[in-house]
Amino acid sequence: MNQDQDFERIIMGIDPGTNVMGYGILGVNQKKLTPVMLGAIELNKVGDHYLRLARIYERITGLIEQFLPDELAIEAPFYGKNVQSMLKLGRAQGVAMAAALARDIPITEYAPLKVKQVVTGNGGASKEQVANMLCYILKLQREKLPSMLDATDAMAVALTHFYESCKPTAGGGAKNWEQFLKQHPERIYKK
Amino acid sequence: MNQDQDFERIIMGIDPGTNVMGYGILGVNQKKLTPVMLGAIELNKVGDHYLRLARIYERITGLIEQFLPDELAIEAPFYGKNVQSMLKLGRAQGVAMAAALARDIPITEYAPLKVKQVVTGNGGASKEQVANMLCYILKLQREKLPSMLDATDAMAVALTHFYESCKPTAGGGAKNWEQFLKQHPERIYKK
Repeated sequence: MNQDQDFERIIMGIDPGTNVMGYGILGVNQKKLTPVMLGAIELNKVGDHYLRLARIYERITGLIEQFLPDELAIEAPFYGKNVQSMLKLGRAQGVAMAAALARDIPITEYAPLKVKQVVTGNGGASKEQVANMLCYILKLQREKLPSMLDATDAMAVALTHFYESCKPTAGGGAKNWEQFLKQHPERIYKK
Repeated sequence: MNQDQDFERIIMGIDPGTNVMGYGILGVNQKKLTPVMLGAIELNKVGDHYLRLARIYERITGLIEQFLPDELAIEAPFYGKNVQSMLKLGRAQGVAMAAALARDIPITEYAPLKVKQVVTGNGGASKEQVANMLCYILKLQREKLPSMLDATDAMAVALTHFYESCKPTAGGGAKNWEQFLKQHPERIYKK
């Protein structure tokens, strides 16, 4: 992973949770993708709710200042177990979003199903499958990654945002599946 | 209302909602309370969810920079209609909290019932009753206030925080109701 490169575009992906918040920094040059940084903010050991929120704000602000992302992509479920947990999740998301809003960084949200679908082609894929496909696309060595799947999930959101923002618009792009594969040979999974 | 006074302590109260966010700045000198500022951030006309969050962050940050509060008190319901609305409310709260966290301002939460109970003596009081009692305690003229009850609600949270932080601790304070009333003559409602 490389921090000293110049990129045309830097996408920050976040998988926000109240226990662990994963993050991934993806550098883009033309169509070349570079995973700059992957990690997770562990919040389990922070007992106090406000200290957790403060930790999220500090760490996300620190990452934004270090990597200067142009865009923020966030994995956001739109449903949950109960209203209590959704309020807490909303606060964790809000605090992370505020770090980006404070610097006028545009935010895009993706549902977990969308991320799985875009990265693996299957909306029902497991976190393991997402991590494996991500390593394949970004040429990452799975063994060298942080063990937490929240980190790979966050990078998967950044990657989803890249693919979605490069989507063919009317009049351009691939007209059929064969043409799409020709334009995106990196999307074909080869053992 | 006065912005140019020096206070020993400034408490900022927030009543966060996704449609209107009320705020109140309460200045404290000894036991003298001064309502410095009351208002509401209207979010109804902002269609986009992110623009709403950005507006909250900007306005709360602006108020913090202008009035330099020492503490933030926030009215926070712990339940809601559905998970979807709680996620949105959580985000709005999270963004407002981040503005305080960024400046190391301690945050205290109060349930709506607690605020009503502390200000009016009745946990089931209406917003109107809270506003009336607030005007009485802070010697505010109801007609001169912003019409929105979110603003008075926010000031009520700031007032609740003041009363709660001045609560008699073990070994100190009032030992019985008569002594409490003697110590707090301002809490007796006289027509």
